[in-house]
Amino acid sequence: QSNVTIYGLVDLGMVYAKQGDNKFRGVQSGTVSASRIGFKGSEDLGNGLSAKFQLEYGIGADVGSGPTGARQSWVGLDGGFGFVGLGRQYSPGHNGAATMTNFMNSSQMDPLSVLAGAAGATIRVAGSGRINNSINYKSKSFGGLKFEALYGFGERNQDDDRSEGDVVGLGAMYSNGPIEATAVYHRIDGGAGDDQKEWLLGGGYNFGVAQVNLTWQNVDAGSIDNDVWTITGTIPVSEAGKVALGYGHLSHDNSDMDADMYTVAYFHSLSKRTMAYAGYSHVNNDDGAVRPFSAGLDADAGNNGNGFTVGIRHTF
Amino acid sequence: QSNVTIYGLVDLGMVYAKQGDNKFRGVQSGTVSASRIGFKGSEDLGNGLSAKFQLEYGIGADVGSGPTGARQSWVGLDGGFGFVGLGRQYSPGHNGAATMTNFMNSSQMDPLSVLAGAAGATIRVAGSGRINNSINYKSKSFGGLKFEALYGFGERNQDDDRSEGDVVGLGAMYSNGPIEATAVYHRIDGGAGDDQKEWLLGGGYNFGVAQVNLTWQNVDAGSIDNDVWTITGTIPVSEAGKVALGYGHLSHDNSDMDADMYTVAYFHSLSKRTMAYAGYSHVNNDDGAVRPFSAGLDADAGNNGNGFTVGIRHTF
Amino acid sequence: QSNVTIYGLVDLGMVYAKQGDNKFRGVQSGTVSASRIGFKGSEDLGNGLSAKFQLEYGIGADVGSGPTGARQSWVGLDGGFGFVGLGRQYSPGHNGAATMTNFMNSSQMDPLSVLAGAAGATIRVAGSGRINNSINYKSKSFGGLKFEALYGFGERNQDDDRSEGDVVGLGAMYSNGPIEATAVYHRIDGGAGDDQKEWLLGGGYNFGVAQVNLTWQNVDAGSIDNDVWTITGTIPVSEAGKVALGYGHLSHDNSDMDADMYTVAYFHSLSKRTMAYAGYSHVNNDDGAVRPFSAGLDADAGNNGNGFTVGIRHTF
Repeated sequence: QSNVTIYGLVDLGMVYAKQGDNKFRGVQSGTVSASRIGFKGSEDLGNGLSAKFQLEYGIGADVGSGPTGARQSWVGLDGGFGFVGLGRQYSPGHNGAATMTNFMNSSQMDPLSVLAGAAGATIRVAGSGRINNSINYKSKSFGGLKFEALYGFGERNQDDDRSEGDVVGLGAMYSNGPIEATAVYHRIDGGAGDDQKEWLLGGGYNFGVAQVNLTWQNVDAGSIDNDVWTITGTIPVSEAGKVALGYGHLSHDNSDMDADMYTVAYFHSLSKRTMAYAGYSHVNNDDGAVRPFSAGLDADAGNNGNGFTVGIRHTF
Repeated sequence: QSNVTIYGLVDLGMVYAKQGDNKFRGVQSGTVSASRIGFKGSEDLGNGLSAKFQLEYGIGADVGSGPTGARQSWVGLDGGFGFVGLGRQYSPGHNGAATMTNFMNSSQMDPLSVLAGAAGATIRVAGSGRINNSINYKSKSFGGLKFEALYGFGERNQDDDRSEGDVVGLGAMYSNGPIEATAVYHRIDGGAGDDQKEWLLGGGYNFGVAQVNLTWQNVDAGSIDNDVWTITGTIPVSEAGKVALGYGHLSHDNSDMDADMYTVAYFHSLSKRTMAYAGYSHVNNDDGAVRPFSAGLDADAGNNGNGFTVGIRHTF
Repeated sequence: QSNVTIYGLVDLGMVYAKQGDNKFRGVQSGTVSASRIGFKGSEDLGNGLSAKFQLEYGIGADVGSGPTGARQSWVGLDGGFGFVGLGRQYSPGHNGAATMTNFMNSSQMDPLSVLAGAAGATIRVAGSGRINNSINYKSKSFGGLKFEALYGFGERNQDDDRSEGDVVGLGAMYSNGPIEATAVYHRIDGGAGDDQKEWLLGGGYNFGVAQVNLTWQNVDAGSIDNDVWTITGTIPVSEAGKVALGYGHLSHDNSDMDADMYTVAYFHSLSKRTMAYAGYSHVNNDDGAVRPFSAGLDADAGNNGNGFTVGIRHTF
């Protein structure tokens, strides 16, 4: 048992949300961060080398489902050369985007995550940012600069297009004092069709009174050419409290599915592991159906979406 | 890892059961208490406040299924005011009924649980007594008296009947020396149809030579009007052994589905955490198909049911 | 928490495999040993008696699926008389075959496991060697000799053939210095059809420079009469490394589905809990579709199969 650490997160919030004629009220799991339970460990192999593993499963804490949602699942070797792992792993795109979130990776409220999803991106701090059947390399930090490279196998190899669904991910992340910057690239092999190519560029600066991040990402796949811009910030307002603000714009170059999203949230730490929160999001849609709190709220395309939440996020 | 406690229960019994032409023999999970595994923890937040979570999953220990069955899944705050939680939680009806069981909540043998299931009750020490998407309040004890209140969201909120499936639960439990008493009420919103309203009243006294409980519960929903009466008791017969006896009557006011159930069981503690048991149940049916050990035995309506079990219940 | 030990295994390998026109490349879980996570415990009951439980679930570590695959799930009593358990348990056939593996029970590379699967055997170090709804007895060792007996209930007891699917397993295992020997028997009740009867006989000797095992097993069910012979060995080549070699022959008496399988592997211990490995397997088929690495590679009947892997196996 000393070989295993159990950890997890339970996040449950009361949610009120609306899009057109559709209204939702209830209790949702993962309103800020996805609820999960995981098992991890590390073994010293000598010579600065260690073996590591992590098995992490998503749970629907509102209805007791799980622990079966595929999150992380890998084994790897860590050493002076960096880390090499095999399995289902966070992609460079996931890790790059995660350096730019001001809403704790919220797939319900963070414009960066919600709009990336609506753009069809795999560069995203959510499920599609984790890659099955992958081999992954992460470098050590060189003066704040780190590199990552991943190859994921689509494993549709019985037919002619043996590389269909294969994913290539490359990323660089820089962190130094008040500065954060990241550049990541993903390519998903389209087989007989077009490849999907993605970019995310992001930069942030901590001014003390506020931490501000700017991102741009693009998804290009045949006739699809989508862009997402976001500006988000965090403002400390007390020892335990901070306000987060975010705006994002989704642009579909070849359809009328553009959207703008605005979010304001308040995060209040009750302790190191427990936080109370409240948040409000608004989405302006053209013909699309982007919405906050989509886990509960059904889509009503062409209408704006609104949502409010108050809840608790507990890590263990 | 010090933040998490793993716990659980494995209950497996040999079962022989019969209803009409249907016969069952085999090994069943949860013959006395449902097999499960869970993870729970508590964090001191200061000022008498603590954050708590619990994630508990059912397992089919006879065939190795699970751990995926939704049992408990919640996070909450505990303090001088009592406890407030969000998620999938035990209802007041579950907790009130649980104070009245003499068969460790057995959904296979306890007339209180089996007949409540046949009556369509959510006031029950089984799955339907746990409520998804709920907010729950439990008071501290005031001289042995405690109160509980729960609101569960049906989350069928896209249509006109926004409150359809919503559950209200209210309960009071009193425990003082030899006396146990409980009164609980549930209402399930029927939307365009009739609401379902339920009551359970129960009382118990420990005479020393025996502990005896009496219960009455009613389920009222449109044309449905079902009542369940039970009398059950536990008689200590040695340092480690006790005999449990139970009788229950199910009355359907508007159909010929009445049933009587008789159970006798012997529970023998091998240690604090391990128990061996044997039990026999008999059900007299009118036109219905109530039966003991229904997890394995198929229904043959209008026939009486019989079942015998011998097994082991181990907690960890 | 002191009542529970968490343990498990994560095995992930890069795999290249081919059968006829079907080609596979990717990352597979359980290339050598099946990935899993488990929970187990023991409680001292006094008088030399203890209560034990084990709950073990398979995981697809390459895609993050699980932990839901049914492996072991039982509770039992251990004492001077041996062990008696109830639930889903390793059969005598599983445990007998496991004493004969030189490839850590690999269902991907071990001729003993792959060919037993192709023969339709339940005497096998894989899923079909674990029996649901069973009662199991395992003796203590008498000078290196142990006995096992299992009865598993098919639980198709609603119809006339109440014993259809019931499994009887009997086994003897002998281990003494350099000598290993085993004889096991399974019978699966066929109800109105023919019973399936199986035998495995195996013997091994450790010559120091190499450990060598010989096995024969037979599956007899109506018109089916299949035999599997294997010879496998392990040769230590360094402090940390060993080479494993294996050959097996599958003979279908009543069809042209015969196959020969050849495997060579290298196992290199990086520590007590972590191993790197590489392996190559070749299968010659008549009209059948036996293949190595079948978890990823689709069948192309009548063609030979080849596969290569390199990976990591980590236990915790």
